[in-house]
Amino acid sequence: MHFKDFSDLSAVGSLQQLAASPCDLTAPGLFSSDRFSRYHLSSCGFDLLYATQRVDDEVLAALQALADEAELVEKFRAMKKGAIMNRIEGFASEERRVLHTACRDIFREQPDNSEAAGQAREQLARLQGFLDDVQAGRIVNHKNESFTTMIQVGIGGSDLGPRALCMALKAWSLPDRATRFIANVDPDDAAAVLAGVDLSRTLVNVVSKSGTTLETLTNEQLVRHAYSEAGLDPARHILAVTGQGSPMDDPGRYLISFYMYDYIGGRYSATSMVGMVTLGFMLGYDRALEVLSGAHAMDLAAEETDIRRNMPLLMALIGIWNHNFLGLPTLAVLPYSQALLRFPAHLQQCDMESNGKSVTRQGRLVRWQTGPVVWGEPGTNGQHAFYQLLHQGTEVVPADFIGFRHPQYEGDLEVKGTTSQQKLVANMLAQSLALALGRNHENPNRYFPGNRPNSILLSDRLTPYAMGALLALYEHRIVFQGFCWNINSFDQEGVQLGKILATRLLEEMTDGGGDRQRLAKDSPERNLLAQASL
Amino acid sequence: MHFKDFSDLSAVGSLQQLAASPCDLTAPGLFSSDRFSRYHLSSCGFDLLYATQRVDDEVLAALQALADEAELVEKFRAMKKGAIMNRIEGFASEERRVLHTACRDIFREQPDNSEAAGQAREQLARLQGFLDDVQAGRIVNHKNESFTTMIQVGIGGSDLGPRALCMALKAWSLPDRATRFIANVDPDDAAAVLAGVDLSRTLVNVVSKSGTTLETLTNEQLVRHAYSEAGLDPARHILAVTGQGSPMDDPGRYLISFYMYDYIGGRYSATSMVGMVTLGFMLGYDRALEVLSGAHAMDLAAEETDIRRNMPLLMALIGIWNHNFLGLPTLAVLPYSQALLRFPAHLQQCDMESNGKSVTRQGRLVRWQTGPVVWGEPGTNGQHAFYQLLHQGTEVVPADFIGFRHPQYEGDLEVKGTTSQQKLVANMLAQSLALALGRNHENPNRYFPGNRPNSILLSDRLTPYAMGALLALYEHRIVFQGFCWNINSFDQEGVQLGKILATRLLEEMTDGGGDRQRLAKDSPERNLLAQASL
Repeated sequence: MHFKDFSDLSAVGSLQQLAASPCDLTAPGLFSSDRFSRYHLSSCGFDLLYATQRVDDEVLAALQALADEAELVEKFRAMKKGAIMNRIEGFASEERRVLHTACRDIFREQPDNSEAAGQAREQLARLQGFLDDVQAGRIVNHKNESFTTMIQVGIGGSDLGPRALCMALKAWSLPDRATRFIANVDPDDAAAVLAGVDLSRTLVNVVSKSGTTLETLTNEQLVRHAYSEAGLDPARHILAVTGQGSPMDDPGRYLISFYMYDYIGGRYSATSMVGMVTLGFMLGYDRALEVLSGAHAMDLAAEETDIRRNMPLLMALIGIWNHNFLGLPTLAVLPYSQALLRFPAHLQQCDMESNGKSVTRQGRLVRWQTGPVVWGEPGTNGQHAFYQLLHQGTEVVPADFIGFRHPQYEGDLEVKGTTSQQKLVANMLAQSLALALGRNHENPNRYFPGNRPNSILLSDRLTPYAMGALLALYEHRIVFQGFCWNINSFDQEGVQLGKILATRLLEEMTDGGGDRQRLAKDSPERNLLAQASL
Repeated sequence: MHFKDFSDLSAVGSLQQLAASPCDLTAPGLFSSDRFSRYHLSSCGFDLLYATQRVDDEVLAALQALADEAELVEKFRAMKKGAIMNRIEGFASEERRVLHTACRDIFREQPDNSEAAGQAREQLARLQGFLDDVQAGRIVNHKNESFTTMIQVGIGGSDLGPRALCMALKAWSLPDRATRFIANVDPDDAAAVLAGVDLSRTLVNVVSKSGTTLETLTNEQLVRHAYSEAGLDPARHILAVTGQGSPMDDPGRYLISFYMYDYIGGRYSATSMVGMVTLGFMLGYDRALEVLSGAHAMDLAAEETDIRRNMPLLMALIGIWNHNFLGLPTLAVLPYSQALLRFPAHLQQCDMESNGKSVTRQGRLVRWQTGPVVWGEPGTNGQHAFYQLLHQGTEVVPADFIGFRHPQYEGDLEVKGTTSQQKLVANMLAQSLALALGRNHENPNRYFPGNRPNSILLSDRLTPYAMGALLALYEHRIVFQGFCWNINSFDQEGVQLGKILATRLLEEMTDGGGDRQRLAKDSPERNLLAQASL
């Protein structure tokens, strides 16, 4: 495999030239039936409508050349097979394989990496057994009652993805099964969650790959304390997801431990045991498996080399067009589905932690922009909030709309001749068009400049399968962009400095304030603590 | 009052020159005790620590000159007294006063605007009576049981602010009082909320100033339907907050209607009846009043002309320094408090809908950047998510940290020698320093460039009073920036085009698809609907 600097790719030069006069979305007659049908890609149950991006055939050809020249699909295939993709050449780095796709490569006789797929199958079989025992009343509380709630304790990748998925798929929950999440080291987070559940009917799933995450261990202590206070035995209620052999891999303290492996990064771990245990508790094993099935379908679809048939690759390249060539620093992800409320927060992590980097795979400073700021809220809520800026602000924000033709729940009502779901989808399409088309008006305050690029992702219904496909779609979009920018999307060295400083400050704070000695007298840390009255 | 274009202010020229060599936060010895204490402002129980912004005395002097020249405080005072601040000169516009500050100007004999303050007092007295009746069992359900839950149905300003406040202050709730919110026209939103409450013990508070908001009316219908299905009389359960004389001001259909007035914009309405009814139900009247008391204190503090003693004004000017002069397009708001989970979403609306504008108060296109993209999530969660990009990404993101010295709930535990709250605050301070200071390292992947500007807002505890002050702090920050950019921060013409297109698309969809006639045959709307299989 060749890793070339982004600025050295010859397609980058062509794209810079094309960016001088990008497609004008406000041109009369542009949005023909032909444009809509040509800029439309279907994959794994999703339609991507990208006629409202500032692209034309020439730009797409240049993006294809970029993908080919940077060997994006080749690198993706190598990743799935087990290449050491998490590394920086010539410097100390994690030196790991990147095999989250193996977590769902369990449906074929010949998986891409049989060792990792075998470990995934093994953990899934253990999970199935555990869930069967809970369901059949073989695992119960001290009063022989069944468990009705699972609290997941984790943070970052051990929280955001699993939480987003559980919220998204609540409509498909088994009856009488609820899930809750504790992440923040803020003691008010745990207190609020614990106050709202019946501890005796609750299982607590503590998730930390290393078994040493400070926030998670602290919250586990709070939970154990609450169980003891309630006269209940924590070991009957608390299970773990962790690395084999970690301090949390301890049958004396946990009901059971499921394993994750060092080749699965936290932000890519939602389809590993990190997400599947709580999802399986909520949905039942078979339905949880449909999430893996949807993700696996997208994993396969992402190997297509024609960018107009590869949805994550095309989205990655359009993102690069908007970010590096049209100069737009952010990306809004706008699901028209309340169930996807926390999906943007998951993507924010997955994207910004992966591609918020400044060093190439060869350890040189990049000379081009890497990952954008990713943010978003569900529509139509956002329409009554920040869309003013999207339409008429001076910052141009590219947007991904995500919607569904049918609701999850039954019972949608017609009001004024249309159902709520029709209103929801019509609003999404309308926003996409309004951003692109704009509008002239003699009142300057009612003028809309248009030319604000966006895409629509549309599927029939937010099912477990669709959620899996959507999750994998964005995972691969991020990975393709990282390969193209020649950065390592799989480490997170940028979180280390804050940890070091926090430890120093904590040591200082617990010295009682009077006799601070560990830090130099006039150090920034001591001066800040004094100023903050801490 | 003079409204001058931002680019015509002479201080803008000075600031541009100063921006060529902004304060280097990585310079050894910069963070002296002296810098921390000089760049520290206390107001209404909050400390603002801004030594980690890229400012020095010269920049602050130029920002003071900018504030003086643009007459920011004078305009703010005029707004509070009732000037027609919501207008565009020479063009059709809303032509309204802007008097959300009057909602809390109820503690003085001589309020700034006695008509609006009188109306606020009147509504508060009605609310107090209503809450007394609920508390004393004079307003009960058909079985003479008390009400335990209030669902607020609203969207945008009728949802985000009230929701953020209720989440923030849940720890101060009366026993057995819960609040829920329905906003999205997505039918799954209402279905999920309604499935989780006992309708017979629930009050539903429907909020719409005009009484015509499509999403809210649709959700009200869903709720009324659910009551009828349950054999309950909706008129015993549903109340309204609306404009006097609106279609929702109807005693036959509502238990009671509280009023809001056209001088209160939706995104500034959290301290009007829009927020106070549900907050009052949850907290009790007296505690809810403390929110107003905190907000009012900040309203007074914001009249100070010295920017180093006026917290919202100083934050507004530092924001302009970062956005217009250092060229940073976004702002991250990072509360180290899980209770403030949805406060960034409220600010996102309040800021982006207010200042996402391209037209001056005189109807000319602006030639400078207006409002930034505002986004954020609570820490420490964010540290395990997007902070990688904040530290090492190519996009530089200014950040506001918000934290508290003490938790809301009792029962914080010491783990490894420190409480959770100490860990939380130490992490916040550490992030602030790490972003500013950076770090050199021989491994380029462990190098941190630093010079990433940020501030810390610190208070003792997130009480109702503190929440009120914090809310008003950001409201005024936004308003000061709008005055400085010479834009109208109080209208939202940018939401209209989407509404028009959504209506057209809905009409088209309900024509049954076969015989679409209302729109031109080759219109973008029809082509898009066809392509989306809708």
